Amino acid sequence: MEHLPEVLFQLFVLLLATKLGDELFKRLGQPALVGEILGGVLVGPAVLGWYQITPETSLFAQIGAVLLLFEVGVHTRVGDVARVGGTAVAVAVLGVALPFVGGYVVGTALGLGFVGRVFFAASLTATSVGITSGALRSLGALATRSGRVILGAAVIDDVLAMLIVAVAVGISAGDVSLPRIGLLLALAAAFIAIVVLGGTGILRRRRSLLTDPRFAETPFLPGMILMLGLAALAAQIGLAAIIGAFLAGMVVGESSERHALETETAPVAAFFTPFFFGFIGAQVDPAAFGSLATVGLLVGVTLLAIVAKYAGAFLGAIRTGRERASLIAWGMVPRGEVEIIVAGLALTAGAIGSDLYAVIVGMVVITALVVPPLMGPLVRRAEPAIAL
Amino acid sequence: MEHLPEVLFQLFVLLLATKLGDELFKRLGQPALVGEILGGVLVGPAVLGWYQITPETSLFAQIGAVLLLFEVGVHTRVGDVARVGGTAVAVAVLGVALPFVGGYVVGTALGLGFVGRVFFAASLTATSVGITSGALRSLGALATRSGRVILGAAVIDDVLAMLIVAVAVGISAGDVSLPRIGLLLALAAAFIAIVVLGGTGILRRRRSLLTDPRFAETPFLPGMILMLGLAALAAQIGLAAIIGAFLAGMVVGESSERHALETETAPVAAFFTPFFFGFIGAQVDPAAFGSLATVGLLVGVTLLAIVAKYAGAFLGAIRTGRERASLIAWGMVPRGEVEIIVAGLALTAGAIGSDLYAVIVGMVVITALVVPPLMGPLVRRAEPAIAL
Repeated sequence: MEHLPEVLFQLFVLLLATKLGDELFKRLGQPALVGEILGGVLVGPAVLGWYQITPETSLFAQIGAVLLLFEVGVHTRVGDVARVGGTAVAVAVLGVALPFVGGYVVGTALGLGFVGRVFFAASLTATSVGITSGALRSLGALATRSGRVILGAAVIDDVLAMLIVAVAVGISAGDVSLPRIGLLLALAAAFIAIVVLGGTGILRRRRSLLTDPRFAETPFLPGMILMLGLAALAAQIGLAAIIGAFLAGMVVGESSERHALETETAPVAAFFTPFFFGFIGAQVDPAAFGSLATVGLLVGVTLLAIVAKYAGAFLGAIRTGRERASLIAWGMVPRGEVEIIVAGLALTAGAIGSDLYAVIVGMVVITALVVPPLMGPLVRRAEPAIAL
Repeated sequence: MEHLPEVLFQLFVLLLATKLGDELFKRLGQPALVGEILGGVLVGPAVLGWYQITPETSLFAQIGAVLLLFEVGVHTRVGDVARVGGTAVAVAVLGVALPFVGGYVVGTALGLGFVGRVFFAASLTATSVGITSGALRSLGALATRSGRVILGAAVIDDVLAMLIVAVAVGISAGDVSLPRIGLLLALAAAFIAIVVLGGTGILRRRRSLLTDPRFAETPFLPGMILMLGLAALAAQIGLAAIIGAFLAGMVVGESSERHALETETAPVAAFFTPFFFGFIGAQVDPAAFGSLATVGLLVGVTLLAIVAKYAGAFLGAIRTGRERASLIAWGMVPRGEVEIIVAGLALTAGAIGSDLYAVIVGMVVITALVVPPLMGPLVRRAEPAIAL
């Protein structure tokens, strides 16, 4: 590695910039995620040019995404998802279907090809578990009925979105025939089912399995091995690597030593995810928003993302009453890492252009910014029992 | 990153192989480090060929070395080093000088160039803090007088070795004139002094400095930023990146939240260092030991490394009595990460050949294997007060 000094410098600059953005946004009472992305825009090639996209810096970004989804998986209980039941499923399915259909129609109007339309539609579907749960936690509303439905639905909609991603990645890699889509869907479903049911089944029968080896006092290192292995396997069979990482997290999260696992995974994810969000920002060229057409597109896509998700989730939650349905639907609006990963895959595959990529990232930033301030009043109305 | 599946697979295979080696060696009661290296040999290009040396896998190995030295730095107290005083300094200086002189003479006899001789000699100098402190801990002898001298001397000898590394790297990069060596020595000393005295001075005056930012509840992320920054800076001015990482660890270790820092650094280092030790192993070709000449060289170099370190450290510790001096000298014998890093730098710079590289790694493995079994009897003789 003759260019180690440069690689170290680029990683240093990106980590510093994202954490300064994080700091600034926390002080302004805004989501840290947005500050990290803007830090990446600042030091990236389009503005200061101190950070460049190279195979080495890309690897750190990809491992950041893999670790992020692993951590989300660790916090996702298979049992919890099953318990919240019907309402959560309805919220998730309608909350994914409406944005997907809306995105597909708009993508057609924008003149995208079939793969581009699927990617674009997929990039509007998933709720950000991170931003939503952060907002609910700060309001003390995580354990309310609305809170549980939101979290359950957010998890189910992540899985749905990843299924769509799996199909989109498969389509972009090969032909687009219906049998092939069916095969991919079956493959993705089989992979997820085998890993989740098989893995959690084995671990439930023998909860100490991951801490039996002497090299591991906690399930952390076995979890990292499983994470890399399933990520590689998922990527190898044509799914996204992050699906494998998410499933690995969900499986090892069933271990008896889950608390130790969470404690040890947290710093590794905290170290790596800024490289992912910074990398996202570095791919955005602010000059793209110099044209009125792109700004118009951003406004249109953002409205579509908010209205379609709100409408779908509201319909799914209507049986809980209008107040709760409003809170649940609004809580499902923030987009986050999944959208950005999907948009990045689409950009790499050449399915969408850099303008639309910038618009999707811009939409994520706006939804992440607008949702938290309105959560407080909605929680007070829907869940008057909790003290605010 | 079109080849993300392959990169993920290689990282997966290496982590799995090193941890299986770790497991096997722990069960045999041998140092895990050796098992990790042998795991790397097994999956590396010379044997199974499942893991390859690429820019991406090299980056993970280098970050592993950087994190390892950062962690050693965090556990190194500037005050402790100062307190153990004269004996530790004498043990460290003589324990570095004799192997260095011996290595230089043998290097000349082997027909190495000037840079090769300096690298080879440097690769015999430093005691492995990891293996020694592990052995002392398992005997309950860390807090004895002998234990404190060994740890203090091991830390000082790390710093001396890094100073030698700094000079060797500088020499290999440019000309070999005496003024240049003097300049490098001055630059290395100034860099170390400014960072350590300046950094610890600032932190001692304001111990909460690293936890003041809102993005950081512990000094972990500020520490990671400082680690990458000082590693890049050290590499940029011609020192080894690991020196910067070590100093960064020593500085942030002075923070008021040291315990939280250690807790969060540990999993990140545990995740990354196997990639470093596995990478070391992957560069060894077992076929090199097929020739009698190389095996003879391995035996000779290993005897030189053991005898020279033992003699130097024994002389340095003689004022503590013969029993303690024997224990201290034997405790200083294990070599480890610093040797391997130096040998790797020398191999990359073309200063030594792959045979001598394999010999140095073999020597490290042998010293790490032979020392722990004899520590018990020596501790019982030198420190009869502790219950074994």
